[in-house]
Amino acid sequence: MSTAERIRGGDIRLASRLIRNLEDNSPRAREIVKELFPYTGKARVLGLTGAPGAGKSTITDHLISSYRSTGYRVGVLAVDPTSPFSGGAILGDRVRMQKHAEDRGVFIRSLATRGALGGLAAAVDDAVHVLDAMGMDRIILETVGTGQSEVDVMNNAHSVLLALTPGLGDEVQTLKAGIMEIADLFVINKADQKGASKLYQELMRMLNMVSEHHSGWRPPVLTLQNIAHPEEFAEQVEEVRQKIDEHYQVLLETDILARRERRKARLQLLNSFRATLLDPIVEELEFSGELEDLIRRIESKESDPHSLADLLRARYLR
Amino acid sequence: MSTAERIRGGDIRLASRLIRNLEDNSPRAREIVKELFPYTGKARVLGLTGAPGAGKSTITDHLISSYRSTGYRVGVLAVDPTSPFSGGAILGDRVRMQKHAEDRGVFIRSLATRGALGGLAAAVDDAVHVLDAMGMDRIILETVGTGQSEVDVMNNAHSVLLALTPGLGDEVQTLKAGIMEIADLFVINKADQKGASKLYQELMRMLNMVSEHHSGWRPPVLTLQNIAHPEEFAEQVEEVRQKIDEHYQVLLETDILARRERRKARLQLLNSFRATLLDPIVEELEFSGELEDLIRRIESKESDPHSLADLLRARYLR
Repeated sequence: MSTAERIRGGDIRLASRLIRNLEDNSPRAREIVKELFPYTGKARVLGLTGAPGAGKSTITDHLISSYRSTGYRVGVLAVDPTSPFSGGAILGDRVRMQKHAEDRGVFIRSLATRGALGGLAAAVDDAVHVLDAMGMDRIILETVGTGQSEVDVMNNAHSVLLALTPGLGDEVQTLKAGIMEIADLFVINKADQKGASKLYQELMRMLNMVSEHHSGWRPPVLTLQNIAHPEEFAEQVEEVRQKIDEHYQVLLETDILARRERRKARLQLLNSFRATLLDPIVEELEFSGELEDLIRRIESKESDPHSLADLLRARYLR
Repeated sequence: MSTAERIRGGDIRLASRLIRNLEDNSPRAREIVKELFPYTGKARVLGLTGAPGAGKSTITDHLISSYRSTGYRVGVLAVDPTSPFSGGAILGDRVRMQKHAEDRGVFIRSLATRGALGGLAAAVDDAVHVLDAMGMDRIILETVGTGQSEVDVMNNAHSVLLALTPGLGDEVQTLKAGIMEIADLFVINKADQKGASKLYQELMRMLNMVSEHHSGWRPPVLTLQNIAHPEEFAEQVEEVRQKIDEHYQVLLETDILARRERRKARLQLLNSFRATLLDPIVEELEFSGELEDLIRRIESKESDPHSLADLLRARYLR
């Protein structure tokens, strides 16, 4: 059996290694993803984002349990774009691993990359394909999120859930309108804390201002009371899960799903193109020592970055 | 006089238009930056980052006043990577514009871009060059920040200041070690609020764990008490400013400045190369309608993103 076939068969060790190799932009790993691609498209992908401390891990934990109780296999990808604000993903990873470590129906990985020119998006696209082809019915894509790279990553999600907490004060003010385009569900975590009802009202006002919601879907605002008993908390998360399922139904019944799939295909192509076009050139320039020379010419103001980029473009492009 | 000469002479209207055109990846704007480049390198650039609500705008406001009182010209670039969490930059912009609108020695602009393949970093590099060539003595580069794009942007800064607030709870836990590499100064804003001393202690413990600070610079942890009288608050910001100046002295006296300049030149070259190489190709593919075809082939699973990217690479690359 080929590596791709063994991964499709659920070989966790091989899948883990493949994802590690994708982080490193390995060309061989990329070939395996090509083989896996025809077997993708079955999983439903939930994007889960929010500021650090918004309780994303807690929500993920409970969603895993909920999905497992229905017999679904669950994959989790915690995306950590090696930002200064990183580490959380890997930390959460370890904590959750303990709880679900014995469960063969749960596959949790964190993903980080330091690719020279933005290999993160392509690596995440690929990792989602891997989990999908492995037969994960539900995939949770968790990002510590405010940057553009996180938005790119959310491209892989059918539904995007934004977790918020009352503690973050001016948060809604700073979020503003743009968020409407990407969040399909809002969850106020720690809703028993001070400021929760104000946050709720502000979100509602913001949602009211958006005159036209995507084809009949108005993003719901759900709340999680963390002081609740564990069973009560699980019930609250069950409601969140129901809303996620409802959203997917709306996607199915309208043309939104098709439009999202098209946007996804587009971005995956561009992400892959960017990686495959640029990375080998930069490696070559580094290996030959020419990059060092070019940098020196910029430092000495003998030339400027744009003029040198133009020279490189003329050399490498047909 | 050429456009570049007029911008160097301080033509605010032309500079504003140039920055707008840089957001749109205009080739003409890029040519003007080439002309400006030899006149850059005089400004000191402060990177200011932190989660939404961490009080970045307040700090920027007071730093502007402080710099102005010494007669320095101050440029502010609020970077807004059109993320779902955007809008804050532009909002803050407007508020601050009112206060400093009459002051010809202050130039505030926000910068956003939706470039297909990551034009933000290149646009920010260029905008910093514009402000520098205009004769701004101090430049504050403000980002709402946790993503990789913000880290890329901070490449332009001599000193990076991270603003934190006690309200954010587990923040330090989720920040973790990586932050040490990029933050040169920490400021705890709203230090009169509950949790401030805990945050302070955690930061100190984290800093103690880093055995070797970059050549003798240990990032200081400063506090701002927002309940203070306005004059007292200004005094606290004055301390922050002094620390920023101290840090720059350390950069000067060691080889850190040279290393940072080298890294900056490298990233600016790569950012420009990425933009100039990819954007025209993607435009061409879009204009001809071929991109649509490729996307359809991915959607129908007739092919996969990597195989099509390989085809494009073979066609466009020498």
